[in-house]
Amino acid sequence: MSEPENKIQNQNQNQKKPAAATAAPVTTSAITPTRSENYAEWYQQVVRAAELAETSPVRGCMVIKPWGYATWENIQRVLDRMFKDTGHRNAYFPLLIPLSFLEKEAEHVDGFAKECAVVTHHRLQPGIKADGKPGLVPAGELEEPLVVRPTSETIIGASFSKWVQSYRDLPLLINQWANVVRWEMRTRLFLRTTEFLWQEGHTAHATSEEAMVETMKMLEVYADFTENWMAMPVIKGEKTEGERFPGAVTTYCIEAMMQDRKALQAGTSHFLGQNFAKSSDIKFSDASGSISFAWTTSWGVSTRLIGGMIMTHADDDGMVLPPRLAPAHVVIIPVTHKPETAAAVLEYCTRLAAELRTITYAGRTVEVELDARDIRGGDKAWQWIKKGIPLRVEVGPRDMEQDSVFMARRDRAHKDKQSLKRDEFVATITTILEDMQSGLFARAKAHREQNSKRVDSRAEFEAFFGSKNDSEDGGGSVQGGFALAHYSPDPKVEDELKAKFAVTCRCIPIDGDEEPGVCIFTGRPSTRRAVFAKSY
Amino acid sequence: MSEPENKIQNQNQNQKKPAAATAAPVTTSAITPTRSENYAEWYQQVVRAAELAETSPVRGCMVIKPWGYATWENIQRVLDRMFKDTGHRNAYFPLLIPLSFLEKEAEHVDGFAKECAVVTHHRLQPGIKADGKPGLVPAGELEEPLVVRPTSETIIGASFSKWVQSYRDLPLLINQWANVVRWEMRTRLFLRTTEFLWQEGHTAHATSEEAMVETMKMLEVYADFTENWMAMPVIKGEKTEGERFPGAVTTYCIEAMMQDRKALQAGTSHFLGQNFAKSSDIKFSDASGSISFAWTTSWGVSTRLIGGMIMTHADDDGMVLPPRLAPAHVVIIPVTHKPETAAAVLEYCTRLAAELRTITYAGRTVEVELDARDIRGGDKAWQWIKKGIPLRVEVGPRDMEQDSVFMARRDRAHKDKQSLKRDEFVATITTILEDMQSGLFARAKAHREQNSKRVDSRAEFEAFFGSKNDSEDGGGSVQGGFALAHYSPDPKVEDELKAKFAVTCRCIPIDGDEEPGVCIFTGRPSTRRAVFAKSY
Repeated sequence: MSEPENKIQNQNQNQKKPAAATAAPVTTSAITPTRSENYAEWYQQVVRAAELAETSPVRGCMVIKPWGYATWENIQRVLDRMFKDTGHRNAYFPLLIPLSFLEKEAEHVDGFAKECAVVTHHRLQPGIKADGKPGLVPAGELEEPLVVRPTSETIIGASFSKWVQSYRDLPLLINQWANVVRWEMRTRLFLRTTEFLWQEGHTAHATSEEAMVETMKMLEVYADFTENWMAMPVIKGEKTEGERFPGAVTTYCIEAMMQDRKALQAGTSHFLGQNFAKSSDIKFSDASGSISFAWTTSWGVSTRLIGGMIMTHADDDGMVLPPRLAPAHVVIIPVTHKPETAAAVLEYCTRLAAELRTITYAGRTVEVELDARDIRGGDKAWQWIKKGIPLRVEVGPRDMEQDSVFMARRDRAHKDKQSLKRDEFVATITTILEDMQSGLFARAKAHREQNSKRVDSRAEFEAFFGSKNDSEDGGGSVQGGFALAHYSPDPKVEDELKAKFAVTCRCIPIDGDEEPGVCIFTGRPSTRRAVFAKSY
Repeated sequence: MSEPENKIQNQNQNQKKPAAATAAPVTTSAITPTRSENYAEWYQQVVRAAELAETSPVRGCMVIKPWGYATWENIQRVLDRMFKDTGHRNAYFPLLIPLSFLEKEAEHVDGFAKECAVVTHHRLQPGIKADGKPGLVPAGELEEPLVVRPTSETIIGASFSKWVQSYRDLPLLINQWANVVRWEMRTRLFLRTTEFLWQEGHTAHATSEEAMVETMKMLEVYADFTENWMAMPVIKGEKTEGERFPGAVTTYCIEAMMQDRKALQAGTSHFLGQNFAKSSDIKFSDASGSISFAWTTSWGVSTRLIGGMIMTHADDDGMVLPPRLAPAHVVIIPVTHKPETAAAVLEYCTRLAAELRTITYAGRTVEVELDARDIRGGDKAWQWIKKGIPLRVEVGPRDMEQDSVFMARRDRAHKDKQSLKRDEFVATITTILEDMQSGLFARAKAHREQNSKRVDSRAEFEAFFGSKNDSEDGGGSVQGGFALAHYSPDPKVEDELKAKFAVTCRCIPIDGDEEPGVCIFTGRPSTRRAVFAKSY
């Protein structure tokens, strides 16, 4: 946006390929600070520079800007297809939940009571405000307060209890796309906001086994999505008691490692047993006429995924979007310095854009931005680099004469451009995008593997993580990563680890073979290694 | 659902075409009461029987059930494409609005203060409830109350004031899909609910002219959508002062006539002038560097459209869906009474479904339901009739032998079925659907024309509408419709018409030629006839 002019004017000094003298090279580092200087601040600056989101005047709530929202729309479109392909249907339930509904499940309300936005009045009238000045004040007090949904088990349960009468009504497989509010004290764009967008699946089944199959099926859907669409490798596992969803019997999750080696819980799938069926009275009669409570599940992912995408792929130049979810795949930048060729170059680019838009990639047509704005080429290129668009293509008069384009991939250094014949570019664009997609995944997976360690004693564990304060916002100096250690779940151990090291048990992985051992904290027997990490 | 068994057992008595003896005819009227018996109750029963939506335990809020939500998803998909094709981008803004923001525009806050859900606390803690019993009570009082958005001009204005600096940032064309809350005293599913889903477009422009072009462009988009997708004819017009959006300079609307001859406002597009730009400080510098306030617009349609669709097309058998927006286009019902042919019939139907699903209709593939549930054929057929699916196809062993299907169209009497060769059905299905679509539109338009009258005196006006009470919930006895009368807008006249006849000025139509005349109420000169009607 504010590229100094002298950087632009010097462009030809950095020229490597004479054939593309018309293309503006980019020479300035984009994000200040870098990841190694201050990871947390780098994150905020990437979000800002990519125009993904911004803070709002409402405490803890964000504004999702068009580029960020278009990313969310792609996430929605792919997940929605996956949910429908597994038999789920969308529906919509009220935003506002009567307080008495929330109270029906004791653990559930305990889990959410501390962070509820509460509606107590239904109109405004003239009066004296808290600051002593005249203005509008709340009026029309409600008999029973309403809570802005932090999650919808209780209000959806009220519908399910009506919809489910017979075993023929089961399984009932429902999903909702919605906004939810949890009053968070410390917020961060996408990762933890007071209001966020999500989907919440809610299902009811005739047997415990079927509900468990559903719980695991949706965990697999989430892992499939995060790995194959977001290019973000995840570990599927079960949460320990202290990290369970309030009211769940068991909570499964997918955990990803961010570039600062902290864990991000990217999605959860809960087996709710009969807890919510009992509190919401979801009962059915079986073929013989006897009545039982149903078995329910719930599962969700949110706009937090965009935070995970940023912290998995972005670099010191800004956002890096996985091609399969990018709002646009390629930007074409006509280089039109010379008035005598400007119109021809623009027309050439317009035809190229039209041809690219006929190509199918990852279930939709290739999305092309043709950026003919009258601003400096260097500024323009940097805006798109920061936005993380997978491919940048510059076309100047000489490129046009040679029927070639000058292409830069966002997964390579920004100066690393190549000249390609136009037809070759068109013919290979989907291959290039898929190569980038798999490359991003491989890089993220290698990062996780390099920073995961099998830890076989408490001393090793402590050396791996250092003290609590070491973890704050640093870059290269952060210790830790994923510690894989034998563990026999114990809430007291987890409280201590959280207090001393800011480390939590992320999950007990469900994949891989059993491996008998002893808990490094208590010496009790263990059948699997758990994953420990600092986390978001 | 609860078809009496004797009706089913008698099915063969009603058989007309021997070739289809296996198909179950349907002989029972579906909705009680009929439209002519009690229109308002008929509406509720259609919504219930079609499983579109239901009331919730939260006052005035509805649950949108899967069949209703899938209809909304189709509405969203088509409108979203129209918005993007006209250059708009989606974004998302906070649900909660600080009270002080709402107060910035005086008319605006006056318009919404009486129906705001107000958040005053951010947590719950143990205490004594209003009923004297122990439980959770609101705690953590907010310094400034937050209002659940009734509309987003003020909170979006806060972002626009940051995003708009230069004329280069204009026009700014944003849309949001969101839920909003307006505390309504009298609610009705889809038509008027406390929470509803909608889209709200918000744009900013450099000149008044451009903002007005946008206002009218989006009104055209809405008219295009309602007429060509919902098959609901509308009149485009301007609202008089008393019906304007609070804070708007002018409000344009589309008005449709329902089957009971009342008007439904189906969408609005507002020219906001500089009112909100001034209250939100949306300013830009032009090419010469001088600073001006932007000109803004807003426009929206909501889940109310589904109410309009019902009241335009549904009949005494239940819902009738316009094919272009139907969640599914055709249900295939295998008739499998005879065990020896059941498997073959089912396989035949499965192949037919697969082939239909390869056909494109109205921008998506033909959506097919294959209903092989083990319930009585008559019940099954009635469920789909009530849901309004455009085509029902029954296939029994004899149909299969003759390679034919037995088809019923939802826009014809439910007993009116025809046998078609399978290949002919496949080849003509999109033609049949389009024929239904245009037939529904033509029928609705004829209904409007039959019930619109040019009224040239106050006496004629009063005779046309009768008294206020005549209008309530009746069927055939309701007077009125659309009265087209010369009118010189006057708030006092409108107050009187509302009080005496429950009639409002729906709009001053923008299409058609000017026609000089005199106002039938005041005798003042008028250049156009206005539309008067009772309304939802």
